[in-house]
Amino acid sequence: MRHFLTLKDYTKEEILEIIDLAFKIKKELKSDTPKTYLNNQTLGMIFEKSSTRTRVSFEVGMYQLGGSALFLSSNDIQLGRGEPMKDTARVLSRMLDMVMIRTFSQEGLEEFAAHATVPVINGLTDAYHPVQLIADYMTMIEHGKTKDPIIAYVGDGNNIAHSWLMLAAKLGFELRIASPRDYECDGRIIDHAMRLAETSGAHIRFYHDPKLAVKDADVITTDTWISMGQEEEKAKRVKDFKGFMVDSAMMALAKKDAIFLHCLPAYREYEVSEEVLEGPQSVIFDEAENRLHAQKGIMVWLDQKRK
Amino acid sequence: MRHFLTLKDYTKEEILEIIDLAFKIKKELKSDTPKTYLNNQTLGMIFEKSSTRTRVSFEVGMYQLGGSALFLSSNDIQLGRGEPMKDTARVLSRMLDMVMIRTFSQEGLEEFAAHATVPVINGLTDAYHPVQLIADYMTMIEHGKTKDPIIAYVGDGNNIAHSWLMLAAKLGFELRIASPRDYECDGRIIDHAMRLAETSGAHIRFYHDPKLAVKDADVITTDTWISMGQEEEKAKRVKDFKGFMVDSAMMALAKKDAIFLHCLPAYREYEVSEEVLEGPQSVIFDEAENRLHAQKGIMVWLDQKRK
Amino acid sequence: MRHFLTLKDYTKEEILEIIDLAFKIKKELKSDTPKTYLNNQTLGMIFEKSSTRTRVSFEVGMYQLGGSALFLSSNDIQLGRGEPMKDTARVLSRMLDMVMIRTFSQEGLEEFAAHATVPVINGLTDAYHPVQLIADYMTMIEHGKTKDPIIAYVGDGNNIAHSWLMLAAKLGFELRIASPRDYECDGRIIDHAMRLAETSGAHIRFYHDPKLAVKDADVITTDTWISMGQEEEKAKRVKDFKGFMVDSAMMALAKKDAIFLHCLPAYREYEVSEEVLEGPQSVIFDEAENRLHAQKGIMVWLDQKRK
Repeated sequence: MRHFLTLKDYTKEEILEIIDLAFKIKKELKSDTPKTYLNNQTLGMIFEKSSTRTRVSFEVGMYQLGGSALFLSSNDIQLGRGEPMKDTARVLSRMLDMVMIRTFSQEGLEEFAAHATVPVINGLTDAYHPVQLIADYMTMIEHGKTKDPIIAYVGDGNNIAHSWLMLAAKLGFELRIASPRDYECDGRIIDHAMRLAETSGAHIRFYHDPKLAVKDADVITTDTWISMGQEEEKAKRVKDFKGFMVDSAMMALAKKDAIFLHCLPAYREYEVSEEVLEGPQSVIFDEAENRLHAQKGIMVWLDQKRK
Repeated sequence: MRHFLTLKDYTKEEILEIIDLAFKIKKELKSDTPKTYLNNQTLGMIFEKSSTRTRVSFEVGMYQLGGSALFLSSNDIQLGRGEPMKDTARVLSRMLDMVMIRTFSQEGLEEFAAHATVPVINGLTDAYHPVQLIADYMTMIEHGKTKDPIIAYVGDGNNIAHSWLMLAAKLGFELRIASPRDYECDGRIIDHAMRLAETSGAHIRFYHDPKLAVKDADVITTDTWISMGQEEEKAKRVKDFKGFMVDSAMMALAKKDAIFLHCLPAYREYEVSEEVLEGPQSVIFDEAENRLHAQKGIMVWLDQKRK
Repeated sequence: MRHFLTLKDYTKEEILEIIDLAFKIKKELKSDTPKTYLNNQTLGMIFEKSSTRTRVSFEVGMYQLGGSALFLSSNDIQLGRGEPMKDTARVLSRMLDMVMIRTFSQEGLEEFAAHATVPVINGLTDAYHPVQLIADYMTMIEHGKTKDPIIAYVGDGNNIAHSWLMLAAKLGFELRIASPRDYECDGRIIDHAMRLAETSGAHIRFYHDPKLAVKDADVITTDTWISMGQEEEKAKRVKDFKGFMVDSAMMALAKKDAIFLHCLPAYREYEVSEEVLEGPQSVIFDEAENRLHAQKGIMVWLDQKRK
């Protein structure tokens, strides 16, 4: 049995297998011949942070696969408070077929997974957001951006940046991350990615000047730097991230047909300009839709790997 | 593709078509031959106000039609805060087949609908409650009250009153609205309805004395004037609405076999007496049940109008 | 039509019938031949207290039986506030096929059931937790503990203790309840159980010394005495419940192959030691899983008893 927590324990072949499966399921849906791969199965979705995309895409995805998803907010169950993670994991494993968790602590997620006897999926932690990256890579494939691509991530060295590091390190492409000083990626995750890159041939570079990072890029992406729960720090961040907005001038430095990705929600005129977000290079709604298809691929793949 | 937001853009024929469809679907359910008109479809239900009837009737209705409904409370997603309405509308349109919104602002609802690429249903706003009126008219039909009926609405000039105005103006029946001074309907909605009435032949009259309004009526209806979020105004309203309680004396002024409607929840001894609410002329639970059937009719009709 | 509220109105034969049905449905699930006994049916689940096990087991159970469950938290509907219980009961009966309520007041639950025209299930009140006891008895059967068993309940004279009283009184087994002074069971429930015991032949005894109660027992069980909403009393209770922790020394007084039950969540080193909870005699996860199967049996049985 496998979990889907960080991508660390996935091979390049496995990641591409999941993506192939996701495209197959997407095609079946679009051609009105959906298959119920997870017939009669149930997915528990535990949310410690509110969410639109993760919630809707997992719930719709499970339903379209023939199963049913339960929305368990932190108001409804007391994950890690009141009851130890290991008890909740063992109880839920007796009732559900799969569990998705959106939480703060990667350690908490991993403790849950260690005690679960059904597959566990990371729906977002402070450290990683791997399901988003499968959707992003699918979007790159659909827009013809996966032949020796150069990806420029401009902004906060957060869970999205960490997941780009892991994906590049596994698949072996060129990734440039530009962050302001004091907002760089986690050193241990960088080290881990750099070691993997030696094998995969990934080119991973770090910058403090976003203009250098985006030069000739095929894909420019960013993420909010005013995340939920950090809004009081907003004024400081607006100052610190000066020059990091992805605007038309920055897009002009990339390849002419570069695409713009954003996992949403986007904060206009902070990390990205309205013009870029709504412009012809932006493929953000294709990317959002691919969350649905990517996660269906992940769930079906995990189901196939059960002993 | 059509939305269902106010009834303004619906013809008499379309409204009656929806009602016919709703009765057909109701009959199929009651005779244990339900059809799955919306097989594999998903409905997003966005709630900015808590609700019993709207929630349960839409969720059960979608399930009985072969689909699945997602309950998205304002705690779970951040509609109009954090993320602009237009982004949420476009993302959800990529994942869902239909969206129902219960919110405060009619403008917000209409902005959402303008950017959505799937049908959007008004589940209640401060301005209109059109799904309730389809249920009410079905209840009138079932109780034989639609041959040149006189409807008396006694109480607050609110979203329910506005929706009666729109329904009367479209279908062409006699509607009398009695409200205290300063609690009359919105002037622009009155103007709109009066213009439509010229074509449809509706007789629409406004009163400050409820006794005049209910004389010889076929249907008497009211709504709470202590709505959610207005509870602090309660003392003032109790005084202002003196004489507007629908009690046995008021019912006695209507036709002998008049029926009493109320969209619920009802506040006994405020807008209606216990005696009337629980009496033989009250058909409030038939009316509540028809929420389920009406909304199924609306959803199936909207689905049939997709390009 | 029947409700499932206290076990008071159930015969021994009916309780065993439900349990047989639950085992049959469990077996069909485990052998991958589930039957959709409640096809197209809907269950409303009203929660005034948050919950993990009750929520997940009812929702998954209803889905596996071919139906659909609606999660209605007290944030979403206003049970007993705003709208009288009798109105909510009558409205929901028009839309749903069955209702489960987890609430504080047994009187509130019974008022709801009195006005409902669909079966109502007690999902937990301050007075009783009957669905838990069906799961517990199933677990005893699976572990060979139902031939003239001696059950020792050690701890608070709460809803779980009351439900053990009712089950013992109906089925006729030996039950020993050990509680500190001032934490004994409700006198009226004790009286009721003692009267029933005269007919069933149950041996029911009360103790203040847990060591006497557990001697030669086949089953030792307990429950938290720091329940939700009582956490401020914690310091006082820790003192009052001194000597009532189920630890290895206490287990050693029972039969050698005695089992340990706990409805969870468990508070380690308060009512039970980590060693017992995680030890070989503990069957708490089998017990938790049986919540799912027990409740499926109850729902299908109630459906079969409809007029």
